[in-house]
Amino acid sequence: MSNTIYQLCASIYPNGTQSQLLECVANQFEEEQNARWLDLKNFLFVLSGALIFFMQSGFAMVCAGAVRAKNVQNSMLKNLLDACGAAVAFFLVGNAFAFGGQNESTVTSFIGTSEFASVGPSPAFWFFEYTFSATSVTIVAGTLAERCQMTAYLCYSMVLAGFIYPVIAHSVWSNNGFLSNFNAHPLFDCGAIDFAGSGVVHLTGGVTALLATIVLGPRRGRFYDSRGEPLATPKVMPGNSIALQLLGTMVLWFGWFGFNPGSALLLDSDHIGEIAANAAVATALAGASGGISALFSNLFIEERRTGEPHFSLVMAMNGSLSGLVAVTAGCAIFEPWGAILTGVVAGWVYIFGTSWLIRHRIDDAVDAIPVHMLNGIWGLLAVGLCASPRKLDLTFNVSKHVGLFYSWGRGSSDATLLACQTLTVLYILGWVLVTMLPFFVWLNYKGWLRSDSLEELVGLDISYHGGEGGGPDGGVKKEYVDAYRRHKGISRRTVQTESDGTELWTSQQENMDDPETPENPGSTEVADSA
Amino acid sequence: MSNTIYQLCASIYPNGTQSQLLECVANQFEEEQNARWLDLKNFLFVLSGALIFFMQSGFAMVCAGAVRAKNVQNSMLKNLLDACGAAVAFFLVGNAFAFGGQNESTVTSFIGTSEFASVGPSPAFWFFEYTFSATSVTIVAGTLAERCQMTAYLCYSMVLAGFIYPVIAHSVWSNNGFLSNFNAHPLFDCGAIDFAGSGVVHLTGGVTALLATIVLGPRRGRFYDSRGEPLATPKVMPGNSIALQLLGTMVLWFGWFGFNPGSALLLDSDHIGEIAANAAVATALAGASGGISALFSNLFIEERRTGEPHFSLVMAMNGSLSGLVAVTAGCAIFEPWGAILTGVVAGWVYIFGTSWLIRHRIDDAVDAIPVHMLNGIWGLLAVGLCASPRKLDLTFNVSKHVGLFYSWGRGSSDATLLACQTLTVLYILGWVLVTMLPFFVWLNYKGWLRSDSLEELVGLDISYHGGEGGGPDGGVKKEYVDAYRRHKGISRRTVQTESDGTELWTSQQENMDDPETPENPGSTEVADSA
Amino acid sequence: MSNTIYQLCASIYPNGTQSQLLECVANQFEEEQNARWLDLKNFLFVLSGALIFFMQSGFAMVCAGAVRAKNVQNSMLKNLLDACGAAVAFFLVGNAFAFGGQNESTVTSFIGTSEFASVGPSPAFWFFEYTFSATSVTIVAGTLAERCQMTAYLCYSMVLAGFIYPVIAHSVWSNNGFLSNFNAHPLFDCGAIDFAGSGVVHLTGGVTALLATIVLGPRRGRFYDSRGEPLATPKVMPGNSIALQLLGTMVLWFGWFGFNPGSALLLDSDHIGEIAANAAVATALAGASGGISALFSNLFIEERRTGEPHFSLVMAMNGSLSGLVAVTAGCAIFEPWGAILTGVVAGWVYIFGTSWLIRHRIDDAVDAIPVHMLNGIWGLLAVGLCASPRKLDLTFNVSKHVGLFYSWGRGSSDATLLACQTLTVLYILGWVLVTMLPFFVWLNYKGWLRSDSLEELVGLDISYHGGEGGGPDGGVKKEYVDAYRRHKGISRRTVQTESDGTELWTSQQENMDDPETPENPGSTEVADSA
Repeated sequence: MSNTIYQLCASIYPNGTQSQLLECVANQFEEEQNARWLDLKNFLFVLSGALIFFMQSGFAMVCAGAVRAKNVQNSMLKNLLDACGAAVAFFLVGNAFAFGGQNESTVTSFIGTSEFASVGPSPAFWFFEYTFSATSVTIVAGTLAERCQMTAYLCYSMVLAGFIYPVIAHSVWSNNGFLSNFNAHPLFDCGAIDFAGSGVVHLTGGVTALLATIVLGPRRGRFYDSRGEPLATPKVMPGNSIALQLLGTMVLWFGWFGFNPGSALLLDSDHIGEIAANAAVATALAGASGGISALFSNLFIEERRTGEPHFSLVMAMNGSLSGLVAVTAGCAIFEPWGAILTGVVAGWVYIFGTSWLIRHRIDDAVDAIPVHMLNGIWGLLAVGLCASPRKLDLTFNVSKHVGLFYSWGRGSSDATLLACQTLTVLYILGWVLVTMLPFFVWLNYKGWLRSDSLEELVGLDISYHGGEGGGPDGGVKKEYVDAYRRHKGISRRTVQTESDGTELWTSQQENMDDPETPENPGSTEVADSA
Repeated sequence: MSNTIYQLCASIYPNGTQSQLLECVANQFEEEQNARWLDLKNFLFVLSGALIFFMQSGFAMVCAGAVRAKNVQNSMLKNLLDACGAAVAFFLVGNAFAFGGQNESTVTSFIGTSEFASVGPSPAFWFFEYTFSATSVTIVAGTLAERCQMTAYLCYSMVLAGFIYPVIAHSVWSNNGFLSNFNAHPLFDCGAIDFAGSGVVHLTGGVTALLATIVLGPRRGRFYDSRGEPLATPKVMPGNSIALQLLGTMVLWFGWFGFNPGSALLLDSDHIGEIAANAAVATALAGASGGISALFSNLFIEERRTGEPHFSLVMAMNGSLSGLVAVTAGCAIFEPWGAILTGVVAGWVYIFGTSWLIRHRIDDAVDAIPVHMLNGIWGLLAVGLCASPRKLDLTFNVSKHVGLFYSWGRGSSDATLLACQTLTVLYILGWVLVTMLPFFVWLNYKGWLRSDSLEELVGLDISYHGGEGGGPDGGVKKEYVDAYRRHKGISRRTVQTESDGTELWTSQQENMDDPETPENPGSTEVADSA
Repeated sequence: MSNTIYQLCASIYPNGTQSQLLECVANQFEEEQNARWLDLKNFLFVLSGALIFFMQSGFAMVCAGAVRAKNVQNSMLKNLLDACGAAVAFFLVGNAFAFGGQNESTVTSFIGTSEFASVGPSPAFWFFEYTFSATSVTIVAGTLAERCQMTAYLCYSMVLAGFIYPVIAHSVWSNNGFLSNFNAHPLFDCGAIDFAGSGVVHLTGGVTALLATIVLGPRRGRFYDSRGEPLATPKVMPGNSIALQLLGTMVLWFGWFGFNPGSALLLDSDHIGEIAANAAVATALAGASGGISALFSNLFIEERRTGEPHFSLVMAMNGSLSGLVAVTAGCAIFEPWGAILTGVVAGWVYIFGTSWLIRHRIDDAVDAIPVHMLNGIWGLLAVGLCASPRKLDLTFNVSKHVGLFYSWGRGSSDATLLACQTLTVLYILGWVLVTMLPFFVWLNYKGWLRSDSLEELVGLDISYHGGEGGGPDGGVKKEYVDAYRRHKGISRRTVQTESDGTELWTSQQENMDDPETPENPGSTEVADSA
């Protein structure tokens, strides 16, 4: 760029009028300024997408903390595969189904049909959307932890990432979606608002988890004894590290600041920073109020019930996550009070949901159903109640239909937005139900869904990953492992040759003849230590 | 934006002169450019604030690593509640007290009095400042770990986040603060410089921790035996995971790159990127030199004392954190040598501080007092010594009063800046002392501060969170737990029904009649595994 | 900035012509716009550099997970010291050797000779490059874990960060490097492309690790029994936490989104965002396909060999890391298919490499050699095969020499780029070999390299850090520790006074006379709990 813009224009119009010259200079500037603004948005997409990608670690640590030691490796692998599989699936077909051709056509369609095996016109957009699809998929694994076969996992995660999720993203988010407020002719002249995906991402993952766990059944011994009789009190299956679970929760919250504010980049607006800041404020307030609401509501309920006030960390953590899930749909268009209200109610929804599931003997190893499904629903509905005219104007340049609380304030009772939001809930529930329920039933019928009893008893790390019981903390009795080995006909030797670092348990047993043991510890060759 | 700026101006001045047209175009561009720059800063506020928010995970992991297993859940909950409570408190009152009305008035005041229950004019600013207030509060919990009641924790964290911290932030950072260098008429025509909060954030948290632990007393058995006699050698209370403590330290350092460089966004400058880069360099160098200084100084001292050279990871970690705390006040205005000097001295301050505390039998479970309080003081003073004229000009557009080392170099001995810094130290110490000391004494008098002996012995996880001893690693003897239960009159059944995932300990004991155990492991129904 | 740009120019040219005025306004705008763009890049450098810095936590957690409990503190300290030492070394000499004076001269040189003890002209550039050098150094520590003296570690890390690495960075990346494509007269009129450092960072670290482990020898008992006879089957030395290893892997992947896309900031281009997005896409796809490739290839091989299909998490994790390492050289200039191909092959390279090492009894505690060295080589070569003309144009404004697959497509077989890439591989291998091999041999000759047998047996935490065996999970027999103490002549008392939080093991033993134990648990003073 050795020439200035003025020199460039002077050379284009050597004998031009002052007006021509000014117009040329002005247009050149405008073009360059807009190009840089777009380019900068690409960079911010990458940074925000990276934060969202990091949420995979959060989900992994929540699982690592919440499952029993004998199933940690299995859970970790599923989390890693979610990140890997979603990338490949979203590249091959997901992006095409969800957003293929959305810039070329304004026709409403059920599914995209172009741009397969491609990242589409904008790599930055692809990367950002990929991280959303990976998040949706990874929600399911937690619920099914400790009892689901690897085959089933591989099947449902491919189907979810490659087809089920993209169809929903298409309907709610693409320019061609029948529910989208970006549609040229939006539903009821309004369209649904799911700013960063309470519905598209969380509800989709959560309802899939619910269907799967109903078909799959609870973990052995969770609600029934070994003769199939219901237990008087459900057995608590404590996770192996509350510290990792907290770490996971905080990592998720951190990543949510990419998830929610980052979604402002999808708008064609000169106010993306301000919109992102509104989203960040709502994300902080809803997560905070969700955690406080769940913690103290549970404290109050427990004290009434048992006379002992207990501060439950799990309640606080899942309450915060619930608030975050719920505020995701409306983070950019809530006033602070709306975010706080959404969070407080989310905490109650969580408490209600988790006890409802237990009462109905539906087993959710990490409480993903109340957190993601129920609060995904609540989040979509909250938009219909609390969406603020001022924020709608700033974010979408339109505020004809606002949250019900505001339209009451205006003296009307325009529930159009709430209707669109409700339809979105029903659509997602219906679509996942009619596709995934038969699929899980079929997997179950084929015997590919549920681990067998013995596999579950010894733990999936031994069963599927060649481990030997997850170390001294695994708490798997040696007799069970031996029984499992006899049953599967696996000799000791086979396992010996595995090199994946999971032989902790036997190395404990074999210390006596450990080749590492010196003959005479005191007399070995000794160099001076540093 | 279908029309270009040129067309817009041409329509405004259809018969305007060339000058009018040019002026219109130029002003339109300038306005748009500035609006985008501001908007972009909003987005960068969100990203930087997210990094700072993530420091909460760092503090949590430092605690998770440093406390004993029986108190992990308690520590984790306090960390989570710090993030939650600070959000709500800073929204309701904190931001108002600290920064309320600072854009409307230039009068010096003690406290802000407007914008309650609001995020103020800039949501991005609110979000960024919230993450600072949360950091300040969370420093205290570590020091008090393993022996502080939940009630006391809830009280002091609300008071600190909602009132004590905001008053300090107002005085040092707001346009209306009497110490602030942003004040229209700054103190001594100079004002104090605490760029990212060595004083406002770290010293405030650290001195609160010191006062609290003096009133609270040391953990049982740390310095005194069960008859109250001082031990010859303080009992080391080893944490339960050095790996998590290292993780926490690194997460904190990572977050500090949002904390320090991000604070450049608060300036009204066209050089925020360069200022941020200076801050990043100083942050890297001071953290590095602090760690090296503390590690090798301790190595040297220990070898002199015991003849054995030991590389202490805890020394290195806390040395790095000390360097980071100390450089926070001056990161943007130090030359690299200043950052290195600050870090090296910070390492020594830490070593001195931690041994001083032990000698005086003041118990700090995570060494937050030497790290945050003493190095908060050192950091403020270091600005008075090392602030570079060149960097002051770049950062604040003024360099009348520089660091003492530079004014010596100029042949004068202008200590005005150092005086302002010293006053800031005294002000923070004084303000926290007169407010928090009576408060902690009162809490103690009411019996709300300290856990009782038995609660502390069995661990706070059992006492306050309905756990049963933190798993096999908890190391809590069954007799103690039983004694605790008898004393509290809690039946076994009550605990059974808890569903917060902490029943590891009993599940171990009950393996014999575990309903999960199959009658006959070899003969259960078996599906083919994947 | 009280005056507008128009007013400024009007005051400069009070009687100027319209042309003068327009030229003045245009140039003022252009200058300001470019200054802001540069300033913004500084800020983005800081954010991207922070992500890269965070990779240190990733390496630390991979090590914490992969080593045995008795060596965790040692590994963590080395990781922290890598971050600290690299900062100081890169400040004092590294940056000068690598990039000193590159803006002043276009002469090709072996090493930079100016800007010592300085951050050079751009603090942002220094910070960004520092994080790369720290990454390169930290790769080595993992391989040598569990048996390397602290002295040796301190020596090689200083030499690597301060001299070996900077020379390579100079040759491949600086304007004065003989291999660099930024050279004014690049090699073969083409120059090598190592966009973000498959070669400069990963291969350098990896080959250093290989040389060191060959000289150092395998861990005790890994391949040989106590009489020095080779074992029939290598002993698996399982790490102590698969969850932390997964966390480390995901943190690394997250940080890689700063590493690869962030490197776009080094270009003088108006398309940094788009280039960064391309890099992010390639990073996601290669990591994903590497993990999938290694997992399923290993599954297939294992099933052939043993009849049992096992999903190995370690394979998947290291496969993903392999894909990430390999795509680092070409991330910005690969089409998606190129990234996927690179990842798939990287997974195979990893599987081949790890079994080759075991067959040749070369011990690599964390598999850093196949991940970083072999895939560093593969990554450099992949650029010579897959570099896309379209992306080369976008990224470097030149596409004369493209990947071999594309030049075949064009009907030629121009392998110039491939030749440059191959030369880069050979140069790095050669340079590290001639410098580091003699260095390690010398260290070994002096007795400073390898821990003695007993130190290794009891674990380095006890040997070098004054610990007592890493807690109940350490699995170090008390007899060994006692033998070690007798041998070293360390009394129990010495250790008592250590305050670095590692006395877990003895505190277990001493519970009986624990001063913390109350005389009568039931009768102690009791305040009402919260």
